[in-house]
Amino acid sequence: MVIPVRLKENGYPITIARGALASVGALFRLDRRVLIVTDDGVPKQYAESVAAACKEPYLETVPQGEGSKSFATLERLLGILLQNGFTRTDCIVSVGGGVVSDLAGFAAATYMRGIDFYAVPTTVLSEVDASVGGKTAINFRGIKNIVGAFWQPRGVLIDPDTLKTLSERQLANGLAEAVKMALTSDKELFMLFEQDDPMQHLDEIIARSVAIKRDVIEQDERERNLRRVLNFGHTIGHGIESAANGALYHGECVAVGMLPMCAEPVRARLTKVLEKLHLKTAVCLDPDAVYAALLHDKKTAAGGVSVVRVEEIGSCTIETADPAELRPLIDSVVRRDLA
Amino acid sequence: MVIPVRLKENGYPITIARGALASVGALFRLDRRVLIVTDDGVPKQYAESVAAACKEPYLETVPQGEGSKSFATLERLLGILLQNGFTRTDCIVSVGGGVVSDLAGFAAATYMRGIDFYAVPTTVLSEVDASVGGKTAINFRGIKNIVGAFWQPRGVLIDPDTLKTLSERQLANGLAEAVKMALTSDKELFMLFEQDDPMQHLDEIIARSVAIKRDVIEQDERERNLRRVLNFGHTIGHGIESAANGALYHGECVAVGMLPMCAEPVRARLTKVLEKLHLKTAVCLDPDAVYAALLHDKKTAAGGVSVVRVEEIGSCTIETADPAELRPLIDSVVRRDLA
Repeated sequence: MVIPVRLKENGYPITIARGALASVGALFRLDRRVLIVTDDGVPKQYAESVAAACKEPYLETVPQGEGSKSFATLERLLGILLQNGFTRTDCIVSVGGGVVSDLAGFAAATYMRGIDFYAVPTTVLSEVDASVGGKTAINFRGIKNIVGAFWQPRGVLIDPDTLKTLSERQLANGLAEAVKMALTSDKELFMLFEQDDPMQHLDEIIARSVAIKRDVIEQDERERNLRRVLNFGHTIGHGIESAANGALYHGECVAVGMLPMCAEPVRARLTKVLEKLHLKTAVCLDPDAVYAALLHDKKTAAGGVSVVRVEEIGSCTIETADPAELRPLIDSVVRRDLA
Repeated sequence: MVIPVRLKENGYPITIARGALASVGALFRLDRRVLIVTDDGVPKQYAESVAAACKEPYLETVPQGEGSKSFATLERLLGILLQNGFTRTDCIVSVGGGVVSDLAGFAAATYMRGIDFYAVPTTVLSEVDASVGGKTAINFRGIKNIVGAFWQPRGVLIDPDTLKTLSERQLANGLAEAVKMALTSDKELFMLFEQDDPMQHLDEIIARSVAIKRDVIEQDERERNLRRVLNFGHTIGHGIESAANGALYHGECVAVGMLPMCAEPVRARLTKVLEKLHLKTAVCLDPDAVYAALLHDKKTAAGGVSVVRVEEIGSCTIETADPAELRPLIDSVVRRDLA
C-alpha cells in the first residue's frame, strides 16, 4: 500500500508492505553516495539490506537511545559526509526508530543547507509517528527535541516484517501513539483496540494511523494550529518523559498523559485499552518535576500551554490554557508513591 | 524605501532608509523576548538602539570574524535562548555583517525547529547580499557555510547611515558584490560604477542590488537553478577565500573570481572598475590550494561544477562544467608570486 503525502513542496510516498525492505532500491533513489544511519539496537540485517541496494553506501551505527540525539553525534555524521565528499545530490537513509530518524533527518536538513533524506522506520512508534511530518531534532542540555528543523523525507518505507524482532514492551510503546490517533480522529480504530487483539492487526493499525497523521500534516505542515491535535497526551506525557529520565518509553508516557485529558466515560474506556496493552495508567514520579519539565516544553508559549481534550471518541477540542491548570491533572496520574 | 520579498511562504519587507534604525520598533515586532546578536567589531550603539525598542532584550556580542560561525558559538546562543525561557513566539535579531546574520539566522532556524528572525545588516556586503535569500550557516572543519539552513527573515532593516563607520576596505568589499549583480543583471548599475563615484551613490547601489537579488530569489528560493546566477565569481572566489585563510575579505575574493569568467572586453571594463574601488585584480596564493578548496565547495556536485559566465554586461550564461576546466582560469588570477 502507498500513502502519498501531498505538501506545498516536496510531497513524498509512504510505502507500507511486508517484505518491501528487499526492494528498497526500487523505492528510493540510491544510485549515489548514501549515508545509512542505524543504531546498535536495530538488527544489522535491515541496514545491510539498504546498503546492498546503494551504489556507494556508508554505514554508521550510533548507540541506541536518546543519548545519540546530541550535537556530538550530529557533528560525527556531518564529518562523515564531509570526509567522503558528499555533495548536494547525495543522500541519507535512516534505518531504525525515532532516535535515528530524528538525528539523521536533522543531519540531512543542515548538511549543505539540506540534502535528500529517506526513512526506514523499524518500530511501531516511528512508523506511526516519526515517519510522517518531517520533524527532525536533537536534544540539548537535557531538553528533548529543542534543536531541530522541519525537513520532509523524499520517501518512507514501512516493512511490518521488521516488527517481528521487537519486544512486547516496544510494540505497546508504539501502539500507544496509534491509540492517541484513534481517540482524537478515528472511532473505528479505537473500537478495533477495544474489541480485537491489536497484535493481530498491526498492518491495519499502522496504515490507519499514518493516514490520520498524513491528513493533519497536509493541512498544517509547520504545527501552527491543527497539527496540535497530534500533541494529545503529549503535554503531560513529555513532562513525565523528562522527569522519568529514560526509565519510561515515549509511548508509555503519552499513554498516561492522555488519561487526564479525557472526559470521564472516555477515560474509563481508554484505561481498559491501556491495560489490555500492558501499558501503565499511572506512574510513580515526583509531580513537581513533571510540572517543571512541562513549563520548559517548547509547546509552552508565552500565552499559555496548548491543551487537547477528548470529550467524545474520534474528535477533540484544542485550547490554550494556563499551565497551572494542568497541575491537578498531573497529580491524578503521577504520584510520589503508587500504593 | 521598502522592497517587498514575495516568497511561497513567509514573504517579508526590506526597508532601506537613512535613520531607520531609530524606529526599528515600528518595523519589527519586538514586544517579546528578543536575543540581539552582534559582534565586537560593530559599533555598540547599533545593537543598543535595537535593545531600547525591545520589551525583553538579551544582548550577545560574539567575536568578530568567521571563527564565530562555529558549532561552539551556535550552542552558546541556543543555551542563552534556553536559559532565558525563549519560546516559539520569541525572536532573534542580528545586528552586523554576514557573520552574525548567518550565525544568528541558523540559531533561529533550529531553536524549537524555527523561531522568528530579523536582520539589521550594517555592512554593504551584508546589505546587498546576506539580507536577501534566507541563507544561514556556520562553518565546519574548515569548510565555509557547509552546515546551515534556508530560513527567511521576518524583516530586514537597512540604514545606510550605519555605513559611515566602515573602513574604505570594508566598503569596497561590499561593493564587489554589487558589481557582481550589475554585471549579470543590470547594465545601468554597472555604468554607474564606471562613470560615477560609487561612494556618492551607496543608497542607490544598495537598493538596485537588493532588488536584483530579490527578483532572483522570488523565482528560485532554494538554489535549484536560476539562483546560481548569484554565484557569479563565487566558484573561484570561494576557493580563493578558503586558501587565503582569513587574509582576504569575501568581496575581495569574489572580485578576483569574476575576472576569468568574463569575455575579454567585459574583463577589461571590470578590471577598471575594480581598480577604481581599490580592489585586487589578482592574488598571491598557491593555485593548487585554491583548486583543492574549489573541489570541496558545496556547489561542486557529482555532475560537475556550476559555472556562470558574462559575455555581455547585464546578462549571463549558466552551465555545468568539469572542475578541471577551471584550473587554467584560476592560474590567470592566482599566482604563487605576483611580480
